[in-house]
Amino acid sequence: MIKSGQLHAFHLGIDTHEEAVVYMRSDCDICRAEGFTANTRLQIHAGEKNLIATLNIVSHSVLPPDFIGFSNSAWHYLRLQHGQLVRARHAPLVNSLSALRKKIYGHELNALEINGIIHDISRRLYSDIEIASFLTACAGGRLSLAEITALTRAMVHTGNQLHWPGKDRVFDKHCVGGLPGNRTSPIVIAIASAAGLMIPKTSSRAITSPAGTADTMDVLTEVDLTLEQLQKVVTETGACLAAGGKVGLSPTDDLLIRIERALDLDSEGQLVASVLSKKVAAGSNHILIDMPVGPTAKLRNLEQADQLAELFYGVAAALQLKVRCVITDGAQTIGYGIGPNEEARDVLAVLRNSADAPPDLTERALYLAGQLLSMHSGDSDTASLQQAREILYSGQAWQQFKRICDAQGGLKEIVEAPYHSELRATSEGRLLKMDNRRLAQLAKLAGAPSSAAAGLRLRVKVGASIVPGQPLATLYADSPGELAYAREYFRQNRDLFQIGTTS
Amino acid sequence: MIKSGQLHAFHLGIDTHEEAVVYMRSDCDICRAEGFTANTRLQIHAGEKNLIATLNIVSHSVLPPDFIGFSNSAWHYLRLQHGQLVRARHAPLVNSLSALRKKIYGHELNALEINGIIHDISRRLYSDIEIASFLTACAGGRLSLAEITALTRAMVHTGNQLHWPGKDRVFDKHCVGGLPGNRTSPIVIAIASAAGLMIPKTSSRAITSPAGTADTMDVLTEVDLTLEQLQKVVTETGACLAAGGKVGLSPTDDLLIRIERALDLDSEGQLVASVLSKKVAAGSNHILIDMPVGPTAKLRNLEQADQLAELFYGVAAALQLKVRCVITDGAQTIGYGIGPNEEARDVLAVLRNSADAPPDLTERALYLAGQLLSMHSGDSDTASLQQAREILYSGQAWQQFKRICDAQGGLKEIVEAPYHSELRATSEGRLLKMDNRRLAQLAKLAGAPSSAAAGLRLRVKVGASIVPGQPLATLYADSPGELAYAREYFRQNRDLFQIGTTS
Repeated sequence: MIKSGQLHAFHLGIDTHEEAVVYMRSDCDICRAEGFTANTRLQIHAGEKNLIATLNIVSHSVLPPDFIGFSNSAWHYLRLQHGQLVRARHAPLVNSLSALRKKIYGHELNALEINGIIHDISRRLYSDIEIASFLTACAGGRLSLAEITALTRAMVHTGNQLHWPGKDRVFDKHCVGGLPGNRTSPIVIAIASAAGLMIPKTSSRAITSPAGTADTMDVLTEVDLTLEQLQKVVTETGACLAAGGKVGLSPTDDLLIRIERALDLDSEGQLVASVLSKKVAAGSNHILIDMPVGPTAKLRNLEQADQLAELFYGVAAALQLKVRCVITDGAQTIGYGIGPNEEARDVLAVLRNSADAPPDLTERALYLAGQLLSMHSGDSDTASLQQAREILYSGQAWQQFKRICDAQGGLKEIVEAPYHSELRATSEGRLLKMDNRRLAQLAKLAGAPSSAAAGLRLRVKVGASIVPGQPLATLYADSPGELAYAREYFRQNRDLFQIGTTS
Repeated sequence: MIKSGQLHAFHLGIDTHEEAVVYMRSDCDICRAEGFTANTRLQIHAGEKNLIATLNIVSHSVLPPDFIGFSNSAWHYLRLQHGQLVRARHAPLVNSLSALRKKIYGHELNALEINGIIHDISRRLYSDIEIASFLTACAGGRLSLAEITALTRAMVHTGNQLHWPGKDRVFDKHCVGGLPGNRTSPIVIAIASAAGLMIPKTSSRAITSPAGTADTMDVLTEVDLTLEQLQKVVTETGACLAAGGKVGLSPTDDLLIRIERALDLDSEGQLVASVLSKKVAAGSNHILIDMPVGPTAKLRNLEQADQLAELFYGVAAALQLKVRCVITDGAQTIGYGIGPNEEARDVLAVLRNSADAPPDLTERALYLAGQLLSMHSGDSDTASLQQAREILYSGQAWQQFKRICDAQGGLKEIVEAPYHSELRATSEGRLLKMDNRRLAQLAKLAGAPSSAAAGLRLRVKVGASIVPGQPLATLYADSPGELAYAREYFRQNRDLFQIGTTS
């Protein structure tokens, strides 16, 4: 006999991603006594830990009597053992939902209300649809500067924070994204830290793009460091190139990003809070923001870039950070590779000063590294750019990059994709334009970034003369299904490569 | 051997509510070949039918090899047989999601874009978080009149439509809700149809309230009619009191309402489109809208009511409907009962002219019936109110109500709640106010409306003298857990009954 209200835990082996789901039998006494039905939100207590989960009702074939099933994420979050006794009850009312409703109806929230929402999301009290509603209510420029500042602070406070004793100035750089292949961070961090700057770089996985820096670095070395490992790497080498996940810097951001990704939504206010909360939590106070602008980049024009920069400067001022936003050319893809593997190849080529290094990626990385060096030294942009060049061309950057990778667990070999296919031109002329958004889509349909080997390698750049049958790009995938799926998209979107005569 | 890309269907017996979920083994060839991972959106083809579902990955203990599991709703939607061969592939890009994104960013949508969204939702192409995002983007007054009109039309066109040959004028009434116990419809429909008006009333289940008319009528007769049954009942009796579900009038609305309910969101524009789409699809063209206004009702003040009325009049004009909005007193709960059972008791008492009939419910129903009769005859409000009184007091309304119930399948006995408990006063004085919102919350925590017997019966009305220990209300529930849960809420919210001395 088990105590009333208690059930034995059962690891059902169902992967629902981050959403916590529990499974109870329809003939279960507790279901009947408590009035639980499908989609009821339950609070589950297991020892000291508890979480809120969505209930799915199952027939008796799925579970033994007196057992409650758990999805993988719920099982791991509660650190359950098979058969362990747990208690299930109706979830308490989540107080911050009234603040969410206030925001939906267009009212500004104060810091206390925003804290409440972020705190409750971090405690897994929000369902996926509630997080989706919060993100939607904040999108489209609906967050004030004060709200974004409060959001940033709340996200910092729900996670770990790093401090660097004896270091007044700690640097970082971030690209707002939207430009496939713009993988400058590994190069910039190598140059800047070779010059003596402390730069503890953590990166998110991609939100809506085919690869984030963390996805690319994952191909080259261990990126899922613990907080202690990260501190050790930075203390040893002055820098790191780690993923944000395990270190628990602004971890609520990761819960939001999961839903943003599913909604393909990446709004201004959330973006600023997401970027700055990670940097503040990492102990950085001097931050360079790269803003590529182009007709098919995330920022379409200078006006949008200025608006976003204003938000960055406003929040930075409130948080006593030094931020420098630089606008860069987002007209076309940087480098030749799109997707984790292919972008890693470009990064290595630049760092090794290889003959086939993409010159645009080299120049972009040097420009950004120069900006960081000048933020540090106060020297002119020209002098700082020259310093960056010397560090790269002398091989110091490559040596420093290897030191960082060694400290993180060693440099890895890139694993080749098992399937590939050429995308060929059907017409003749000059390559006038490429559509960044659809190139990114193509790489994602091939499986990037969750398949590291998936993506594409461009065989041409804007301005090239094209003849029918010429390969425009090579497509890589982990499975024939994904390869076929991406090829099908290309067939329907050939005009993403605009080939013609210059007007 | 099964054909490549095909799997056998397996009814897993997991109730995920309306969200379609499929389950595949992590070691399944198709998963690997196609690159499916947890939460991938898949399109499942089964014979002529197909739907989009969210994938959960399961371990080999859950499913036999070469099988794909289905949640209950997905299983029923596809009308599957055990072992039937189905095909799974990556879901195609849902085109209307770009319109959703446009709306999130604050732009007005045209009719084509709104049609696309509603059409795709009706075809089950949207995930729950996408529907949540759409509802949030439309809430807070963010829909223009043109958008609400387009939304109404789109919702009408995705479902069945009724026509009443030979009838120029077909009536209906609707209450915008927010006032617990305001169960006038069964009484008003009985009076109006006794007077000869055709009034094919279908009602939703409750969205955010403890009972909708459909929930209350479900206690008294069969409400889940098919379209053919509904037509027969209306042809025979001039009216019906059916649930909207099975008849497929504006069925997309039901998909939206499920998420609105989970988000506890009920926005103006959606409300107007929801109400009018149901009426237009039912073939009605003369519609009375009851708008209770009070500090704790859904409409807090006359300004809000006027705004909403303006939307109703605007959309009605575009759709060539005659709408009359009337503002009624929403200061306190109508009748004594809150929740399906208890509201049904009040309705019967009024129709039977019982001595214990709540006078406020009687008066409210007579007022609304009078308004409908005057919309029909053009007579003065006073004369029409007198006509309504005669129909009720003569017993004609009760006879007509029984005819409607008989046509729908017979009048049922109310089933008593197995658990109840008195909520008693702890202080002395006059009952100054009741908080409608928290009374509704209390009834919902007790299990209403999904438990028909759950709810409360008020023992006092505003103005009554109260002594400590006096019962203020009786709480009903189907389970001890729900009863305890609601009692706990009451303990923390005793001030929902405001007892004191009149200032």
